[in-house]
Amino acid sequence: MLDLTTIKNPEFLKNMSREQLESLSEEIRQFLITKLAVTGGHIGPNLGVVELTIALHTVFNSPKDKFIFDVGHQSYVHKILTGRACDFETIRQYKGLCGFPKRNESEHDVWETGHSSTSLSAAMGMAVARDLKNTGEYIIPIIGDGALTGGMALEALNHIGHEQKDMIVILNDNEMSIAPNVGALHSVLGRLRTAGKYNWVKDELEVLLKKVPAVGGKLASTAERVKDGLKYMFISGMFFEDLGFTYLGPVDGHNYDELFENLRYAKKTKGPVIVHVITKKGKGYLPAESDKIGTWHGTGPYKIESGDFIKPESPPPIAWSKLVSETVRTVAREDSRVVAITPAMPVGSKLEGFQKEFPERMYDVGIAEQHATTMAAGLATQDMKPFLAIYSTFLQRAYDQVVHDICRQNLNVFIGIDRAGLVGADGETHQGVFDIAFLRHLPNMVLMMPKDENEGQHMVHTALKYDDGPIALRYPRGNGLGVPLDKELKAIPIGTWEVLTEGSDATILTFGPTLQMALEAADQLKEQGISVEVVNARFIKPLDETMLHHILKAKKPILTMEEAVLQGGFGSAVLEFAAEQGYHTAKIDRMGIPDYFIEHGSVNELLKEINFTTEETVKRVMKLTQLKQKGLEVR
Amino acid sequence: MLDLTTIKNPEFLKNMSREQLESLSEEIRQFLITKLAVTGGHIGPNLGVVELTIALHTVFNSPKDKFIFDVGHQSYVHKILTGRACDFETIRQYKGLCGFPKRNESEHDVWETGHSSTSLSAAMGMAVARDLKNTGEYIIPIIGDGALTGGMALEALNHIGHEQKDMIVILNDNEMSIAPNVGALHSVLGRLRTAGKYNWVKDELEVLLKKVPAVGGKLASTAERVKDGLKYMFISGMFFEDLGFTYLGPVDGHNYDELFENLRYAKKTKGPVIVHVITKKGKGYLPAESDKIGTWHGTGPYKIESGDFIKPESPPPIAWSKLVSETVRTVAREDSRVVAITPAMPVGSKLEGFQKEFPERMYDVGIAEQHATTMAAGLATQDMKPFLAIYSTFLQRAYDQVVHDICRQNLNVFIGIDRAGLVGADGETHQGVFDIAFLRHLPNMVLMMPKDENEGQHMVHTALKYDDGPIALRYPRGNGLGVPLDKELKAIPIGTWEVLTEGSDATILTFGPTLQMALEAADQLKEQGISVEVVNARFIKPLDETMLHHILKAKKPILTMEEAVLQGGFGSAVLEFAAEQGYHTAKIDRMGIPDYFIEHGSVNELLKEINFTTEETVKRVMKLTQLKQKGLEVR
Repeated sequence: MLDLTTIKNPEFLKNMSREQLESLSEEIRQFLITKLAVTGGHIGPNLGVVELTIALHTVFNSPKDKFIFDVGHQSYVHKILTGRACDFETIRQYKGLCGFPKRNESEHDVWETGHSSTSLSAAMGMAVARDLKNTGEYIIPIIGDGALTGGMALEALNHIGHEQKDMIVILNDNEMSIAPNVGALHSVLGRLRTAGKYNWVKDELEVLLKKVPAVGGKLASTAERVKDGLKYMFISGMFFEDLGFTYLGPVDGHNYDELFENLRYAKKTKGPVIVHVITKKGKGYLPAESDKIGTWHGTGPYKIESGDFIKPESPPPIAWSKLVSETVRTVAREDSRVVAITPAMPVGSKLEGFQKEFPERMYDVGIAEQHATTMAAGLATQDMKPFLAIYSTFLQRAYDQVVHDICRQNLNVFIGIDRAGLVGADGETHQGVFDIAFLRHLPNMVLMMPKDENEGQHMVHTALKYDDGPIALRYPRGNGLGVPLDKELKAIPIGTWEVLTEGSDATILTFGPTLQMALEAADQLKEQGISVEVVNARFIKPLDETMLHHILKAKKPILTMEEAVLQGGFGSAVLEFAAEQGYHTAKIDRMGIPDYFIEHGSVNELLKEINFTTEETVKRVMKLTQLKQKGLEVR
Repeated sequence: MLDLTTIKNPEFLKNMSREQLESLSEEIRQFLITKLAVTGGHIGPNLGVVELTIALHTVFNSPKDKFIFDVGHQSYVHKILTGRACDFETIRQYKGLCGFPKRNESEHDVWETGHSSTSLSAAMGMAVARDLKNTGEYIIPIIGDGALTGGMALEALNHIGHEQKDMIVILNDNEMSIAPNVGALHSVLGRLRTAGKYNWVKDELEVLLKKVPAVGGKLASTAERVKDGLKYMFISGMFFEDLGFTYLGPVDGHNYDELFENLRYAKKTKGPVIVHVITKKGKGYLPAESDKIGTWHGTGPYKIESGDFIKPESPPPIAWSKLVSETVRTVAREDSRVVAITPAMPVGSKLEGFQKEFPERMYDVGIAEQHATTMAAGLATQDMKPFLAIYSTFLQRAYDQVVHDICRQNLNVFIGIDRAGLVGADGETHQGVFDIAFLRHLPNMVLMMPKDENEGQHMVHTALKYDDGPIALRYPRGNGLGVPLDKELKAIPIGTWEVLTEGSDATILTFGPTLQMALEAADQLKEQGISVEVVNARFIKPLDETMLHHILKAKKPILTMEEAVLQGGFGSAVLEFAAEQGYHTAKIDRMGIPDYFIEHGSVNELLKEINFTTEETVKRVMKLTQLKQKGLEVR
């Protein structure tokens, strides 16, 4: 037995026997199952790539040769083999190992990800650099079948095939990416998978054709073409060859013989190669292996024996995703125009119930945010009412589709922006902190965020009744506050805020979960004799101009708070309004996410790091009220 | 002869004889050549689709059946056939016909575009709506071979093939989209194009195979598969069939018999169909027909006889695109790390010179903005110095790639943001007015805009020397001011502004072409005894904080000006700075693009429409200085 925590780099693999490799695989699996039971993490994808990752590190020489993990959540084995097993209990935790490749962790991490489908484009850039510098290393992007449906990966395949750059693409085909795969491409892969060893069949048919007397003479070239045609026919999909790649596979991704043989063959092949490797997500851990819908893609802590997830002692309030999707489902019963669209996140977005009740009105388009967004626009042109459920961080992928297709045509699309704000353990690639800044400047856009799940359900209703253009609802990762839900849904007038607590010394304007922090701060300030008005600024666009005039005329200093980037955010909208309307003496302070990328950790740890706390809120309000007392001139 | 301006709708086509159709085609060609000689416009693409558009309107029933033009610049014939010939002299002009489909112009325009590759996703949305509402119309997206390389179109193809929705995709393959096509997909299309009538060959081979004795008995099913295989082999690319489409073609797009036959066959076919139509850009007008590099894609006015473009009497100053690309070329001579990337705009971005001198360091990746951007990031990880030349409006397509791949990894990518600001005749789909708002909030980003072409060349040098992360240079459409260019390139310190005119009553902060307006306004104000400081705020991010402190401490009122959206823009950055630094009494006013989409027209007409003029600048400054005189309390 090897002590995994003593591994410094993957050199030791080169001298290992087949038996030693098998035993190492087993050991790594146990290590992952044990460690992740405590911390949680992307267990399924990593158990699936144990042999593949070991084989890659055996056949190639990292860091000279470059592994580029697509999405990156399947890089745990790579992390273990490159000297990071010792830090594994810190994974995805504050200041601990990142759950994705991270360049400042190791020279073996050459590309950082978190979002899907970037690996091939990155690899193309690296291949161009290699050839210009003549350094001759191997470049090996590792991409899943799900990530391959992302348009960007297809753009890259097309370009790489055309340029014929040397590159070894590992297609990690695990039959199920995050959710059951969607799209024709998946069925191409399916046919490849079931085709068996096509080379063998081809050889046999070549022999057969040579025996056929009619195929000869004038038709010789035709016979040659028939022979080439066979290859396509038998792998029943020449998709990759059509694009200019040499196709190798399918390869059993848990069989070292097959892996070594094909990877070594790929090394000798000029031009771009696809090695099609079949792996099983969750391999070696029964609960994860038998998962059909993606529950074991990424998990919290679990009990190793049973595979039960460790649940909080009392059941938490309803998850935000569930609240939104289930309310959409309720409205859909009365409004046949409602159609739900998700880019590969039916489970994450809790759309299973909707899907079950309205299978013909629900579209999981796969990892294809751009297509999902414009398809919603297409539906809206026909007087349908599309609900696009998408994570804030992935909506970034469809920015132009929101601008050019939805907002410009002023179409009635309801965008459910899930995971808005800090998301915690997934870290900097997944923080939903840019959406306000990248949506607020778009004409026709309405953007809102609810204070609690009851307001949340009314906002869903509001959005689905709204027929004057696009409307977006942001909601956080995690669960609601546990407030009771009204039986009757009602519409909230667009652009109206509400005063939660009256106060004459200062006003806090905020929305969403941050309101709880504001209310707490107001309580503490009250004890010190400062009376604060807390406003639920639930519409980020349009602002409640009537209320803002009222507040500004009363010369109350204002603190804005948002769990989103400060530049161009909600606070800036308030500054803009004050300047435009000539309130040149208004005292406005803003709290939000500063100008750097926020890494992983619990949301509370992260909020503390950026000084986004009740304590700071109190301090800021006190400073503002002192300003007020001291008069206007402060510098 | 038909008077084209009397056409109300395409009904009249149904009763036309073949001869009448031929004569109509000729008439429409002459109409286009004559009208566009005066106004300019997308002549090449429209001459190529005369027969195709007439055939579509004959075989289908618009507006019940829906034509969705991808990109949309090839919709002129459609506009003529749907009653808009009478307005043709106004095309692309202020308040005139739009150069792209526009829903408020006609019920026959069901989808608006300008950007590429959206038609298939829109069509999918419309097909879902049709099937839910059971309205049974035909849905016909018309997409060029160039647009098909956009990732979004590939995402949609994949999804449509999977869902097997009834839809007739017209692949308008004109061998050359905006620039010579790039990518493996293009070579697939090339093989399809040269394959001839594959059905005929297939039939002949079937006969042959039946005669072969060895193919029978146990191998019968193999023979069947061989037969199917032939199809793939002879069209030498079963790309579309692989994705689940029925493939029809290739069809001669200038031959009514072939068009009618295939379109009618497509009408009867269930599931998604691709009709592969070969057309010739510029067909019927020799100068446009013989164009090989895209000069006749979109043009200004020209002389009909000779095909010479009508040039201004004196040669204009250097084009901004040319200045930037040629300076990159100069630097590239000394810095072998410089690599240029363009998504299908080598001509528009004036990269021909660079390409000629450094063919191995120049990549035209086709219409694939996402891939282009992340490929640049990949290059930067290997210590190369990529220059990504991209129009502002198309950079919207790569927002997440800028966030997630470039800024988050803080990579040294130089983004040349071409066509920043209002662009004129191309209208609302192409205005480059969002880039400040969507880039300014990104950590690590440096964003600048030069006052003239001499500063522009120094900024290119600055960007290529900068090695602390991403840096972007915005520059307008059109030509420089005609100032002399320094021989020696020099670096401009990051985040420094410069004072152009001293003044004590107010400060104007602006950058780029708008500085000329500010200087003019300052001159006029001087005559009225108001002395204005005009600052070249050439760094939009980071701001020149030292200078801003200085201005704010002096209590000078500030007017910010930007040819970009106001929300979240440069002016907001100044407001944010003032609020953050406690200048709570600063008087700051902002001029910029208001919160709606700006349609087509000359840039001057558009600036006047939004009241972005010297006159307004003077007025705003006067108001600000009055405020200053009256004291701080203004409301």
